[in-house]
Amino acid sequence: MFESAEIGHNIDKRAYAREVPILRAALLEAQLDMAKLAQFPVIIVMGGVDGAGRGETANLLNEWMDPRFLETHGMGDPSDEELDRPEMWRIWRALPPKGRIGIFLGSWYTDTIISRVENRIKRADLDQSLESARRFETMLVDEGALILKFWMHLSRDRQKERLKILEKNPKTRWRVTKRDWEHYKKYDKFHAVADSVIRHTSTAEAPWTIVEGYDPHYRSLTVGRTILDAIRKRIDEAATLKNEIAAPPPLPSIDNLDILKTLDLSQKIARKRYADELELHQGRLALLTRHPKFKRLTVIAMFEGNDAAGKGGAIRRVTGALDARYYTVVPIAAPTEEERAQPYLWRFWRHIPRRGRMTIFDRSWYGRVLVERVEKLCSQADWMRAYSEINDFEAQLVRHNIVVVKFWLSISKDEQLKRFKEREAVEFKHFKITPEDWRNREKWDEYEQAVCDMVDRTSTEIAPWTLVEANDKNFSRIKVLTTLCQRIEDAMKNLPRT
Amino acid sequence: MFESAEIGHNIDKRAYAREVPILRAALLEAQLDMAKLAQFPVIIVMGGVDGAGRGETANLLNEWMDPRFLETHGMGDPSDEELDRPEMWRIWRALPPKGRIGIFLGSWYTDTIISRVENRIKRADLDQSLESARRFETMLVDEGALILKFWMHLSRDRQKERLKILEKNPKTRWRVTKRDWEHYKKYDKFHAVADSVIRHTSTAEAPWTIVEGYDPHYRSLTVGRTILDAIRKRIDEAATLKNEIAAPPPLPSIDNLDILKTLDLSQKIARKRYADELELHQGRLALLTRHPKFKRLTVIAMFEGNDAAGKGGAIRRVTGALDARYYTVVPIAAPTEEERAQPYLWRFWRHIPRRGRMTIFDRSWYGRVLVERVEKLCSQADWMRAYSEINDFEAQLVRHNIVVVKFWLSISKDEQLKRFKEREAVEFKHFKITPEDWRNREKWDEYEQAVCDMVDRTSTEIAPWTLVEANDKNFSRIKVLTTLCQRIEDAMKNLPRT
Repeated sequence: MFESAEIGHNIDKRAYAREVPILRAALLEAQLDMAKLAQFPVIIVMGGVDGAGRGETANLLNEWMDPRFLETHGMGDPSDEELDRPEMWRIWRALPPKGRIGIFLGSWYTDTIISRVENRIKRADLDQSLESARRFETMLVDEGALILKFWMHLSRDRQKERLKILEKNPKTRWRVTKRDWEHYKKYDKFHAVADSVIRHTSTAEAPWTIVEGYDPHYRSLTVGRTILDAIRKRIDEAATLKNEIAAPPPLPSIDNLDILKTLDLSQKIARKRYADELELHQGRLALLTRHPKFKRLTVIAMFEGNDAAGKGGAIRRVTGALDARYYTVVPIAAPTEEERAQPYLWRFWRHIPRRGRMTIFDRSWYGRVLVERVEKLCSQADWMRAYSEINDFEAQLVRHNIVVVKFWLSISKDEQLKRFKEREAVEFKHFKITPEDWRNREKWDEYEQAVCDMVDRTSTEIAPWTLVEANDKNFSRIKVLTTLCQRIEDAMKNLPRT
Repeated sequence: MFESAEIGHNIDKRAYAREVPILRAALLEAQLDMAKLAQFPVIIVMGGVDGAGRGETANLLNEWMDPRFLETHGMGDPSDEELDRPEMWRIWRALPPKGRIGIFLGSWYTDTIISRVENRIKRADLDQSLESARRFETMLVDEGALILKFWMHLSRDRQKERLKILEKNPKTRWRVTKRDWEHYKKYDKFHAVADSVIRHTSTAEAPWTIVEGYDPHYRSLTVGRTILDAIRKRIDEAATLKNEIAAPPPLPSIDNLDILKTLDLSQKIARKRYADELELHQGRLALLTRHPKFKRLTVIAMFEGNDAAGKGGAIRRVTGALDARYYTVVPIAAPTEEERAQPYLWRFWRHIPRRGRMTIFDRSWYGRVLVERVEKLCSQADWMRAYSEINDFEAQLVRHNIVVVKFWLSISKDEQLKRFKEREAVEFKHFKITPEDWRNREKWDEYEQAVCDMVDRTSTEIAPWTLVEANDKNFSRIKVLTTLCQRIEDAMKNLPRT
């Protein structure tokens, strides 16, 4: 695989001096066109052998291009805020918005490769990690990103030579660390792991470009031209077709029987019993969230449901038991301008709390497969792929000891009508009913289909849906509270020892 | 001062039960009106004696109001990302946007009070800190915030009693810590410091409300009603007059001689010498920013200047010497939607880098007193107060070992014309010249006046302006590089020992 990057590519000084000004001007222009369009971000991954010029190339690109629209991420040691969250959180917070370029010198491959070289993870873990990387990149590409991955290669002898040269020069000595030499000693292992990484993650949409790193002229021009061509091509294609559908649409319900129809919405809790149970379970939740073990957990509770199903009321019964300093309620409305410049999951990633805290989403990332699907705010391909993207997202949360609790509050069509009318009658509740609510109601069946597909495809063992019979508010609120308590108790029992 | 909060206010159970539902409904409605208008944020500070019910009141407010538009900040131990930045950074990142309420259980007073009680700071430090707090609040109010500060008071005996009661009940025992008892022992000192804090920071625009904390009914209703009244009053006033001008406008230049006119714009560096000096000083900057001591510094370099003065080119000569992983260039354009929902300095605070890094602003917070002043994008009162707000801002940066380097790139009117025409002629530079540039040019004299006022009022010893004669690009770039190097060298010499 690396053979063609060991044949001694080089470009002589004069040819280089002739080419560079042309390339620079073209890169600057492409960058400005891209910034003006603001239609896609460019994500550049720089991987490779130590001493092969990853850092130098990144610096050179910064010199050649307009640094105002370019950000370089070294991804050194994670901060405590980063350690408190899933690994990918720091990648998400560093993603460039549309119109900008982000260069990742450390990436979602770095840890994996080094861990495998140092035998800290097994072959199977490597494969799993690469599969995640591939899925992450596919998602970014589907969301419009242009991904370019470079692997700077050096043969064994060349690497040794380069490290020695860098070490000799006082100006570059700081670049060579003990760790580089340790890596060099493991050249063969590193080579084998890299080979495997590149093979498994060179996809059509995010291929690796292997670059011989020995000659700086060749290396720089190759990387620069590859970036230029890719951006240009992408700008030219700008107004073309959306990606095709990758999977068949969910099965239509042919017998008109679905999971929602199996719910017994007549379940009730009478007033007196409700008051007792509310106190009991709010007390239980209060103690649970103040338990020392809770400091090691994170809870994400998410509320979806029919309009007027009582999400707000249920949320207030939960927050009523919590210490206000340790929870946040995030109402999901239309995305802001900064959020629209990022992949759609970005605006949820930014709200992932630190350990010891709870975040409650009032509506959520499932908007993609509910309202956006039914109202055709995104293409079929977009919401179709969202199921697995969401499953990947939630899996990352759960792997980090985050308890993900998902509620669907379900009411009958009649009950909804009753509540709508009630709201219209009570002046104080007027703000709660809008013409949009009435319009949504007309699409009841479509929403029902969307909900069933959502539950079918995203109720996983690690992050199951809890369907809540919500015709009776008392019943609904108690079910929410007890489910939440149960999930936290289970998670505390399963906490790994420190 | 606390006398009237020791007279045993209390509200009986029945009166409370009657009042609460009315208050809650009114609060909810006010909150929703406020969210709909999205014209101002509400910032609530909860201070007071341990056991006087700060936390309980915050929780109760969360129960009463809509938690979707309300966030409570405990401000516990700062994270390492917070420790790496000026103290107030964590307050800025927690500020509620317009339309929302933020409750601060720990605030910009907490550290000051405790440090003074524990004798870790002197009387003079306390005064200085209170003065900063007052200025910060004035700025928030001028930017539209509604600030409500509550001080929960208990007499000495009452505090002891409360702590004992809380300790006895297994449900509330976790609330009372060893630290609370230690504070109690220092009651008199605490009382004296609190008295001083409240006296010095009870301003017309952000007064303290002292609340007797013993009776929860009285306490809760008092706080709730105060908040309700303030929000209602503010909504009713919504469309009224802007704040008056607090200071006379800067002096007009009557002899037409100003600081810009004293610059010798004819200074030049010839090509050959330029190449040598560029290499020399870029090398110097490269070594400086890789020096171990640099890890303990932060650099903020800021570029302002006439249109076409060569800011971009100067910035690229600086970044050319830097490791791309440790710097960011922030181009300042129109604020985003999220930025518009915050005080104007917020969008700069969010870009303050961690230690060991450099952030370069291409245009800056000085837009307020330049383009916004001249183009009348804000009121005279707004840009007039900006001078001291900016000085406060920069003082906070400098106190945290941040090197603040401010460049004004100055070209003559003729030189600008030449460059505009050049840009129009060269197709590749077309994007750099817009009708707006020509319009700005017509206001040359007004801009010049604004620049002179800016330099007069914000060139401080700790954050001086460097005026750069920029008719000759070579001269300009070398002056920028040498100034930056010099400032970093000075800062390294003055670094406190670790």
